[in-house]
Amino acid sequence: MRTQQNVPLSAVRVEDGFWSNIQTLVRDVVLPYQADILEDKSVVTEKSHAVENFRIAAREAEGEFQGMVFQDSDVAKWLEAASYALALQPDEALNAHIDEIIRLIDKAQQADGYVNTYFTVKAPDKKWTNLRDNHELYCLGHMIEAGVAHTLATNKHNLLDIVCRAADMVCRRFGPGKTRGVPGHEEIELALLRLYRVTGKQDYLDTARYFIEERGKQPSFFEEERARHAYDLRATNEEYHQSHLPVREQTEAVGHSVRAMYLYAAMADLSAETGDASLYEACRALLDNILESKMYVTGGLGSTFHGEAFTPAYDLPNDTAYAETCASIGMCFFARRMLEIKPEGRVADLLERQLFNNILAGIQLDGTRFFYVNPLEVIPSISGAAPAHKHVQPQRPGWHACACCPPNLSRLILSLGRYAWGSGDRTIYAHLWLGGSAQFSVAGRVDVACESQYPWNGAVCYTISPAMEGARFCLAIHLPSCCRNAYWLLNGEVFEPDMKDGYAYIDRAWHKGDTVKIISELPVLRLYSNLAVPRNAGLTCLQRGPVIFCLEECDNSAPLAALRLPPDAEIGVEKIHDGALKGMTALTWEGVREISDTGLYSERHPIAYPAKVKAIPYFAWGNREAGEMRVWVRE
Amino acid sequence: MRTQQNVPLSAVRVEDGFWSNIQTLVRDVVLPYQADILEDKSVVTEKSHAVENFRIAAREAEGEFQGMVFQDSDVAKWLEAASYALALQPDEALNAHIDEIIRLIDKAQQADGYVNTYFTVKAPDKKWTNLRDNHELYCLGHMIEAGVAHTLATNKHNLLDIVCRAADMVCRRFGPGKTRGVPGHEEIELALLRLYRVTGKQDYLDTARYFIEERGKQPSFFEEERARHAYDLRATNEEYHQSHLPVREQTEAVGHSVRAMYLYAAMADLSAETGDASLYEACRALLDNILESKMYVTGGLGSTFHGEAFTPAYDLPNDTAYAETCASIGMCFFARRMLEIKPEGRVADLLERQLFNNILAGIQLDGTRFFYVNPLEVIPSISGAAPAHKHVQPQRPGWHACACCPPNLSRLILSLGRYAWGSGDRTIYAHLWLGGSAQFSVAGRVDVACESQYPWNGAVCYTISPAMEGARFCLAIHLPSCCRNAYWLLNGEVFEPDMKDGYAYIDRAWHKGDTVKIISELPVLRLYSNLAVPRNAGLTCLQRGPVIFCLEECDNSAPLAALRLPPDAEIGVEKIHDGALKGMTALTWEGVREISDTGLYSERHPIAYPAKVKAIPYFAWGNREAGEMRVWVRE
Repeated sequence: MRTQQNVPLSAVRVEDGFWSNIQTLVRDVVLPYQADILEDKSVVTEKSHAVENFRIAAREAEGEFQGMVFQDSDVAKWLEAASYALALQPDEALNAHIDEIIRLIDKAQQADGYVNTYFTVKAPDKKWTNLRDNHELYCLGHMIEAGVAHTLATNKHNLLDIVCRAADMVCRRFGPGKTRGVPGHEEIELALLRLYRVTGKQDYLDTARYFIEERGKQPSFFEEERARHAYDLRATNEEYHQSHLPVREQTEAVGHSVRAMYLYAAMADLSAETGDASLYEACRALLDNILESKMYVTGGLGSTFHGEAFTPAYDLPNDTAYAETCASIGMCFFARRMLEIKPEGRVADLLERQLFNNILAGIQLDGTRFFYVNPLEVIPSISGAAPAHKHVQPQRPGWHACACCPPNLSRLILSLGRYAWGSGDRTIYAHLWLGGSAQFSVAGRVDVACESQYPWNGAVCYTISPAMEGARFCLAIHLPSCCRNAYWLLNGEVFEPDMKDGYAYIDRAWHKGDTVKIISELPVLRLYSNLAVPRNAGLTCLQRGPVIFCLEECDNSAPLAALRLPPDAEIGVEKIHDGALKGMTALTWEGVREISDTGLYSERHPIAYPAKVKAIPYFAWGNREAGEMRVWVRE
Repeated sequence: MRTQQNVPLSAVRVEDGFWSNIQTLVRDVVLPYQADILEDKSVVTEKSHAVENFRIAAREAEGEFQGMVFQDSDVAKWLEAASYALALQPDEALNAHIDEIIRLIDKAQQADGYVNTYFTVKAPDKKWTNLRDNHELYCLGHMIEAGVAHTLATNKHNLLDIVCRAADMVCRRFGPGKTRGVPGHEEIELALLRLYRVTGKQDYLDTARYFIEERGKQPSFFEEERARHAYDLRATNEEYHQSHLPVREQTEAVGHSVRAMYLYAAMADLSAETGDASLYEACRALLDNILESKMYVTGGLGSTFHGEAFTPAYDLPNDTAYAETCASIGMCFFARRMLEIKPEGRVADLLERQLFNNILAGIQLDGTRFFYVNPLEVIPSISGAAPAHKHVQPQRPGWHACACCPPNLSRLILSLGRYAWGSGDRTIYAHLWLGGSAQFSVAGRVDVACESQYPWNGAVCYTISPAMEGARFCLAIHLPSCCRNAYWLLNGEVFEPDMKDGYAYIDRAWHKGDTVKIISELPVLRLYSNLAVPRNAGLTCLQRGPVIFCLEECDNSAPLAALRLPPDAEIGVEKIHDGALKGMTALTWEGVREISDTGLYSERHPIAYPAKVKAIPYFAWGNREAGEMRVWVRE
């Protein structure tokens, strides 16, 4: 069912003045910053202890395990991200740094392949006793992903061997006719599928399928497990773990949003791998459900702090949003796998919505602070202060006790090339307009260069250089739905490509230096919510290109709720020339500021005054003085 | 400092076709309904066991204590309410029923005066060990209020003697030079002040003052107490208990809203009693703070479920509001005491806002279901379902595990006469337009009759009948701020009364049958929130007379957020002729319904269609089919 493969990262170069800068930031600033934290060389909140746990498990240090039960996953995600950095650019020091950590992991691994410092150091007798809460398979999944990324980047097998031994142990233990088990936090499933693809070992595919298909079956595995604990564990909220129904019967996105995304990504991957149509249909139903009723306009997923979870349809409060950075990252995993099965413009648009908004908002422009929660409305006296808003921080903290998001950002951003391109039998897919270049094997080697100033500019140029002159193959380019009045030029001549589901398919004999240019407008779009979302009635949200805009107090003044955008206001597009947001685009208009009576309630209608209003990209909020922020603007 | 006394309930008759109907409902339906629940003759959720606990404590039954640690207070509040019912109208059966419960309490009382079934039956060794959490003084306070109400209604002393013995024990135990103590839930303070007024015993005043003044002093009593428990109790949230500062230094309403109201009521009462100006100033500052930034337009107090508490200024979410019925009842206690010190129109208006809106919404029109939480916006698929909305029920339940609100409603409604009238040295105060009659002793006996169809009609007529022809005294009548273009007529002649702070002062020699008539309009008012309340920007709320209106789905259709009230729409006032709301006033207008695209987000502006819209009194919502409800309407 899969129409295309990932392009190896080493075959992709990002050079667009946007993502390339962010990749450089992640490589040069974020990875070392995160390594220092994981190795306790720098302490932001409390010691991470994550690498020290491995050192203790390897018997190279004395001490007790410290941190979350899933602390190992921080190391694994960093290793995966660092491996992507190596794939992008050789770096001997980083290579050696990675190898040293792998050496510790190797020494910490037990004879049967088991590797998890919490259980090795702290609770050896509790292994595999609580799959629901204890994240053993989750941590291992992340280690497997790191092993796969590392071997693809370096051709070395030192981490891959470790994770294969661990995966083999899991395959020996769990499956039909073996021990029953379902992980509380999905991750092992998609990891085993990745490992299957680099090793070809059927056991990995089978065990991934087992974990996916066993989930939600009756009787509940989690309640069986709980009974073994004499019910000392709290009762299972099956929806939280997406185990309320067998996965093929799930049609509504529920529960912990990151877990949901990791599961759906694995379901899509399995259906791609095996051609399982009913599993793919479940994925489509879940995706539709999210797109139709459960996603913030910024891409944010999960409306509530309670269980970091999805809530009922259309419950999308802006000020108490959860919209975890990791959930949006997980959505990229899911969307990419859906695109590999069937290229669809709406799914590529979704990928853009995630990347340019909720995900990028997760990281400070200087690379050293991170949002876990991404609200769409912040009022400093309330956000972080009122009990229902305690999780909503008005500024990015330097680290988090539960540090899942920062290394997740690193691994996603450094592997962006895998999301931009796809390689089919005879088709090259450009899912994202990502400036730089990529190499493919379709009708022989083909080099594709891409010039782009996206997201600020709607022009893009692809230059195709087949090794074989006149090779016939298809180039499929996604036209983002935010681009309007697009002209397509083939070698400078206007043409009408075959469009299908938001992709242009250009199937021809290609010659070295052939160009496909798209010149489109990126008008400012006013978006309106479905009126079933009660909070957004009467409000509009501005988007230009894939970028959602917001108001900040430092450009306007508080309260931002007092500002109105007249229906007929012309919205100017301006380049920002200085300050932290230099080079970005801002929107400005002649709007209205209302001023109300001083009392709490008044019969006097607020009085309207003209006011110049400025909006900036949502992803860049919180990079200047602290203050109010607001995405949805009164019209 | 006090300018006036309460009027004895037996001197007041309510006959206005509005409150008189509600009093009848409470007497004939609610009191028996509640008695059956307290005596386990009917079970709505789980057994109340409240009277049975007394029976066990009195050794007339076997068994264990069941219910909340403050279960006794349900019985006390019912006794207080039933005593008010007796004051309004003799009832031998009720009288006997009350006496039987008093007999049990008497038998349950211990030799030293201690009376609390939780500690007598379940935890005798834990008495007085945890004043912060265990509600001993709270329960006793309610019993004292019942004792005072009972003796005033019946002239009997059987309950008064019990509570005096208990109060004496408290006075012996706590105070300067005795054991240090501050109650976690305020109530004993205002109760001891009431007891002081009927008994004249100085100890009660002194101990009330002690509890008020000791609160918030350093070192923290609650933390001292916690240290005695080897810190096994959770740390104290001093704001939750209003113990973060000495009471005279408090200027912001914080913490549990019911506790706050009971404390402020006691502070006002004490300052009235003793002429303590600094305490009165603190009361004014706290009242101002609430009126300026912390009250829903319905009178609701406390924005959050978490700690049932006040939150930062202007944080007034409509859909996750807490706005506990008891907090509004507590505000009536506070407001009445403030009015007794200084009659002010805004305080009398506040009393009306509470009574006609958040309080009355607490009780189903049939008297058998009750709201604890009073939201200003309900969407059934979200309210009660989404985690942040779990506390928001779209329909009134029959009872509550924490059953504080239902009997609190009974005692307030049956004692309404005490809020309507005040009796000064030579002035009769009419704080509320409450149809019926009242007797006063100013310049001899004076009978005042009041004809009113408030809140539906802005005309009221007071007929004054002094026993002494030509007696000189002053009649002070509050002119509600919702009344406009008022004409004042004295014996049919238009006159201009001396107005001060919202009260008309009519000082003259009165003759039997003199009438003061006020003919005013009750226009439909559009209220606007301060723009610092982010949720209400662009919205308006309709008020007519003291009644706030809301939209319900059964009159309009969902989503209610799709409805707009045009700025120039004429709003019709209609009488409802049938159904559950028969006799009430509805508002109707030709408005606009927007219909949005089917997707979650769209570039297309929702399309506007004309729509007939109907609003009903907020207090009557939830009495027909379940559905959406909304107070703040888009303009």
